[in-house]
Amino acid sequence: MNYQPRPEDAGFILNAVLAAVPRLRSLPAFADYDEALQGQVLEEAGKFVAEVIAPINRDGDEIGCRLVDGAVVTPPGFRDAYRAFVDGGWPALSAATDDGGQGLPSVLEAVLYEWLSAANHGLTMAPGLLHGAYECIRHHGSDELKQRYLSKIATGEWLATMCLTEAHAGSDLGQVRTRAVPQADGSFRVSGGKIFISGGDHDLSDNIVHLVLCRLPDAPAGPKGLSLVLVPKVLQGGSRNAVQCERIEEKMGLHGSSTCVMRFDDATGWLIGEPNRGLAAMFVMMNAARLHVALQGIGLLDAAWQKADAYAHERRQMRAPGPAPASRGSEAADLVAEHPAIRRILDTQRAWIDGARAIAYRTAVQLDVARHDEDAKAREQAQRWCALVTPVIKAACTQQAFSGASECLQVFGGHGYVREWGIEQVVRDSRVTMIYEGTNEIQAIDLLVRKVLADGGAGMSGLLIELRDELDASRDIDADVQRRLAQLRYLTTTIAMAAHKDARLPYEVADDYLRVVMLAFLAWAWARLEHAAPGDARWAAPAAAFRRWVLPEFEMRLGIVKRACEAVTLPAAA
Amino acid sequence: MNYQPRPEDAGFILNAVLAAVPRLRSLPAFADYDEALQGQVLEEAGKFVAEVIAPINRDGDEIGCRLVDGAVVTPPGFRDAYRAFVDGGWPALSAATDDGGQGLPSVLEAVLYEWLSAANHGLTMAPGLLHGAYECIRHHGSDELKQRYLSKIATGEWLATMCLTEAHAGSDLGQVRTRAVPQADGSFRVSGGKIFISGGDHDLSDNIVHLVLCRLPDAPAGPKGLSLVLVPKVLQGGSRNAVQCERIEEKMGLHGSSTCVMRFDDATGWLIGEPNRGLAAMFVMMNAARLHVALQGIGLLDAAWQKADAYAHERRQMRAPGPAPASRGSEAADLVAEHPAIRRILDTQRAWIDGARAIAYRTAVQLDVARHDEDAKAREQAQRWCALVTPVIKAACTQQAFSGASECLQVFGGHGYVREWGIEQVVRDSRVTMIYEGTNEIQAIDLLVRKVLADGGAGMSGLLIELRDELDASRDIDADVQRRLAQLRYLTTTIAMAAHKDARLPYEVADDYLRVVMLAFLAWAWARLEHAAPGDARWAAPAAAFRRWVLPEFEMRLGIVKRACEAVTLPAAA
Repeated sequence: MNYQPRPEDAGFILNAVLAAVPRLRSLPAFADYDEALQGQVLEEAGKFVAEVIAPINRDGDEIGCRLVDGAVVTPPGFRDAYRAFVDGGWPALSAATDDGGQGLPSVLEAVLYEWLSAANHGLTMAPGLLHGAYECIRHHGSDELKQRYLSKIATGEWLATMCLTEAHAGSDLGQVRTRAVPQADGSFRVSGGKIFISGGDHDLSDNIVHLVLCRLPDAPAGPKGLSLVLVPKVLQGGSRNAVQCERIEEKMGLHGSSTCVMRFDDATGWLIGEPNRGLAAMFVMMNAARLHVALQGIGLLDAAWQKADAYAHERRQMRAPGPAPASRGSEAADLVAEHPAIRRILDTQRAWIDGARAIAYRTAVQLDVARHDEDAKAREQAQRWCALVTPVIKAACTQQAFSGASECLQVFGGHGYVREWGIEQVVRDSRVTMIYEGTNEIQAIDLLVRKVLADGGAGMSGLLIELRDELDASRDIDADVQRRLAQLRYLTTTIAMAAHKDARLPYEVADDYLRVVMLAFLAWAWARLEHAAPGDARWAAPAAAFRRWVLPEFEMRLGIVKRACEAVTLPAAA
Repeated sequence: MNYQPRPEDAGFILNAVLAAVPRLRSLPAFADYDEALQGQVLEEAGKFVAEVIAPINRDGDEIGCRLVDGAVVTPPGFRDAYRAFVDGGWPALSAATDDGGQGLPSVLEAVLYEWLSAANHGLTMAPGLLHGAYECIRHHGSDELKQRYLSKIATGEWLATMCLTEAHAGSDLGQVRTRAVPQADGSFRVSGGKIFISGGDHDLSDNIVHLVLCRLPDAPAGPKGLSLVLVPKVLQGGSRNAVQCERIEEKMGLHGSSTCVMRFDDATGWLIGEPNRGLAAMFVMMNAARLHVALQGIGLLDAAWQKADAYAHERRQMRAPGPAPASRGSEAADLVAEHPAIRRILDTQRAWIDGARAIAYRTAVQLDVARHDEDAKAREQAQRWCALVTPVIKAACTQQAFSGASECLQVFGGHGYVREWGIEQVVRDSRVTMIYEGTNEIQAIDLLVRKVLADGGAGMSGLLIELRDELDASRDIDADVQRRLAQLRYLTTTIAMAAHKDARLPYEVADDYLRVVMLAFLAWAWARLEHAAPGDARWAAPAAAFRRWVLPEFEMRLGIVKRACEAVTLPAAA
C-alpha cells in the first residue's frame, strides 16, 4: 500500500484551524494568495506525490543507492521521478520569482515535503537540501555566485549538499579540519574528508553544488574559525572538480538516499559570506531545515498510520470484547481495528499527527511572516516563534515518528516484522530523523540553554502569553490549556533560578522541558482543532486519545523537572 | 565490540539480593547445589558465550540464513558453534539427569540464555526452542515418543520447533486449519501450511522435531479442537518425512535465525497428549518460554548498553557543562559519557537491566520451586508468581529492549545509524521480541483479564502481600515501595469493580496496568539491590536514575487507569 496524501486534511488545518490565508495575504509578497489557489496547489501536489513519488519507495529500500565505478547510481525510477518533480516546478514552489521560483508561501512547501517524506523519504532527501542552499547563497553569496548558481538551485536543475560532519567532528563542528586555501584568482582550494553527506553523489542532476564547512589558513581554533565554501561537482566549462564520493554507508534504513564519504583534493571553490563566519551563514537555513525534519517525522508517522489503519480494517483475529461491533456481521472473528489495544495505537498516532501538523504549519506561516511582514515587531514575534518552536517539533515529532511507527508495526503482529507489508521500512527510515540536523538531545539543549535561558525565560514567556491571549476563556478546554501554559511559564522561571546554582541542571532536564513544551502546544492545537470541528468523529477520536493517553505525560515531565530543581535549590531535600 | 557477560553481576543478584542458593538447596532436586558450583557454571558459561557465540553475531546479521535448493544454510560459523554448544552440555543444563541432562536449576539456564541472546540473538533462537519441546514431550508424550525423542532433544543433538501460526491464524490460534488424519498404525498424516516457524529448517542438527498444532477430523471448531502432533524431519530408519521449508522470510532483523514457511504434505507424525487438548499441552511450556523472551529483552538491552557505554568512554565531543570532569585532562572536548543527556541514557538502561534481572531471576527460581518443592502451598505460591509475573516481564523487558537500544543508538549520533558499530542490529533484532510468544498487547490482556480479574484480583493481592511482608518497614525506601504496592492493590480492586460496568474497560487499560505492575516490581528490586550494596557506585547510579527518570511513570499510568475507571463508574464525570 503506497502513501496517499489527503489534501482535505491539510486544507482544514490551514483554513479552519489556523486561518493561514488571511494572515499570508496580509504580507505584500502574497497579496494574491487565496484559498482557491492554495487548494489547487495542494490537490496537484497530492496527485503528484501519490502517482509519481510513492510507487518507487519500495525499490528505494530494497535496491537502494549503489556506488558503481566511483559514481552513485540511484534506485530504479528515481531519476525519472526527480525529472518530473523538476519539470512540474515543485522544487521552486517557494523560491522568489526572480530566481525562477513560483513565489508561493513556505507553508505549501511544508505540506508538500511532509507528503513527499511520507511517500518516499529516501528520494525526498535529495531536493530537501536545496532550499537551505538556496537561502544560504541568496543571503550570503556574492553576485557572481548568485548569478551562476541561484536559479539552477532554485529550480532544482542542480542539486546541493551540506558538507559539515567529519569523522571526528559530529555534533562538535568546532573540530572541523577541512582546509580551504585562497588562490590569486579569488577562488579557494579545498582539501579534506567529510562523512555522512546526504546526496554527496547521485545521478539525479547534472551537477551537484556542495556547501563545505572548512577552515582557512590561520583561522582561529573552534567554531569561530569556520568558513563556508561552495564547491561544485562540475566546474564552469564542464570539467570535473576534484571532489569524489569514496564510499557510501550501509545504513539501518533510508537506502534510497546515498550517505557519502566525500574526499576533496584541492577542489576549486568560492567563499560564501565572510571568512570565519561559516556557521552564521549556515544558520540562516537552520530553522527551515529543522522544520522540514519535523515534517518528515509527521509524514512518516502518517505513512505508518495509513498502513496500520488499512491492515486493521482488513485483518480479523478473535472476538473484540464488549457489545458486537457493526463490522462483525456473520464473521467469527472481529476486525483487528475493533480491539481496544489496537484502537488506542491508531488513535494515539492520529492525535500526534494532526496536533503536530497544526503546530508545524503554523511555524511555516511564521517563517513567511518573519521574512515578509512590513511591521518589525510582527517579524520579531514570528522569529521568536520559529526559534523556540522549531527545536521542539524537530525533536518531538521525530521521536514520535520512530516510536509511533513501531507501535503501528505492532498492529500487524508477526507480519509487521517481515518486509512484505512495508511497515518495518518506515520504522528503519524514520530512525535517522532523531539524529540528523542536530540530534534530539541537542535540540533540547538548543531550546532550553541557548534560547529560553539566554534571556532568563523572557522570550518563552512572551510566546506563551501570545498563545494564552488567543484562547477563549469561556471554553473549558481552553481553560485547561491556559492552566498548562501558566504551569509552563512558572516552570521556566523555576529552572532559570535553579540553573544559577547548578550549571549542569538545565542540561539534565532539557529533554523533559522540551516534552512539556510540546505537550502544552499539542493541548493548544487540540483545543483549536476541536473548536474548528465540533462533534466531527474524524477529529473527536484523536482528540479523546490525546487527552486520555498523550497528555498525562505533561504532569509526569513537569514533576521530573520540578524535583530536579528542588534538589538543587533545596539541598536538604536532595 | 562483542558482548561480554559479567558473571559477577549475575552472582551478586542471585546471592546478595535473592539468596537463591539456600532456597534452591531446600528443594530435594538441588540438595547438592551451592555457591561454588553456581559460580563455576556462570564463569564457564560466560567464557563460552564470549569466545564462541558472540564473535559470529555480525555475520549472522549480514550474511544471514539462506534457502539453497530447498534447504536452509545457516551463516558461517553457526554450525561449529552449535556443535560446541552441544558438546559442552549447555543445552542440557536444566534437563533431568535421566534424560542426559545435568539436573541444574532453571535459574542458571535463565542467565545462560540472557547472555546467549545478548551475544547472538539469531543463533540462540535454535536451542531456545528445545526446552519447551523437552518439557512438552516429557509431560505429555507417550513412553514410546519419550524413548525415541526425549534425550536427543534434552542434549540438543536434535533441535525442535513449535509450528503454531498459519497465515490467517496469528494471535487467534483457534483459526488453525492444518489437518491430522489418524492411521491404522497409530500414527497421523499431517497436511497444511505454517508460517513464522523459527528454525523450521537449518543445518545445525541432523534432525528437527516439529511440534505441530493441528486439527483432527471432526474436531470441534475453535481453540478446543486443536491437537499437538510430533512430526520429525527425518523418520526412524533415516527416510525424509514429507515436511518442507518453502520460503524464508525477509525480516527487519534476526537474520541469523531462519523464519520459515513450512509445508506438511501427508507428513507422518504422532499425537502428543490427548486429542483436542493440544493447547493445554503447549501451555505447559508457556511460562518458561515467555520468561526466556523476557531474558532476551534484558540481554539485548545489556548488549546495547555495553556498546554505547564503551563508545561514550572513547568518543569526545564538546565540553560538558559544570565543573571539569577528571577525564578531561588536557583535551579540548570531553568524553560523550560526561554529557548529562548521555549519562542519563546510560544509567536509565542500567536501571532497567539490573532491576529486571532481579525480577526475572527470581521468577526462574520460582519455576524450580513450582516444580520441585515438597510443600504444595509453596508450589502453588510459586506457580502464582510465575503466572502473574511472566507476562509482565515479557512485555516490559522486550519493550525496553527496543526503546532502550534505540536510546543507546542515539549515544553514537550519526555513527549509530550505520552498520559499522553494530548498535542498529540490536535495535532491529530486538523488535521481534515484542511480537513473538504472544504480542505484548496479548501479555497485558493475559495478565489483567485472564489472570488478575479471573479471581477478582485475589491472586495478585496475595502476591503483593507476600512482597510487602518481605520489606523492612524501618527503611524509607522500603516504605515507599510498600506505599506503591498498596496503591497497586487498590487499583486492582478499582478495575475489578469498573469491569463489571464495562467489559471493554480492562482491555483498554491492560497495557497501563501491566506497566504499573512492572514499575512497582522494579521499585521492589531497586530497594533490594540498594539494601544489598549500600554506597556502592556500581549500583548507586542506576538506583538514582531509576527513581529520577523511570519511576515517575508509575503515577502517570496509575492516573490513566484511575480516570478510565472513573469514567465508567461515574458516568457524569466522563
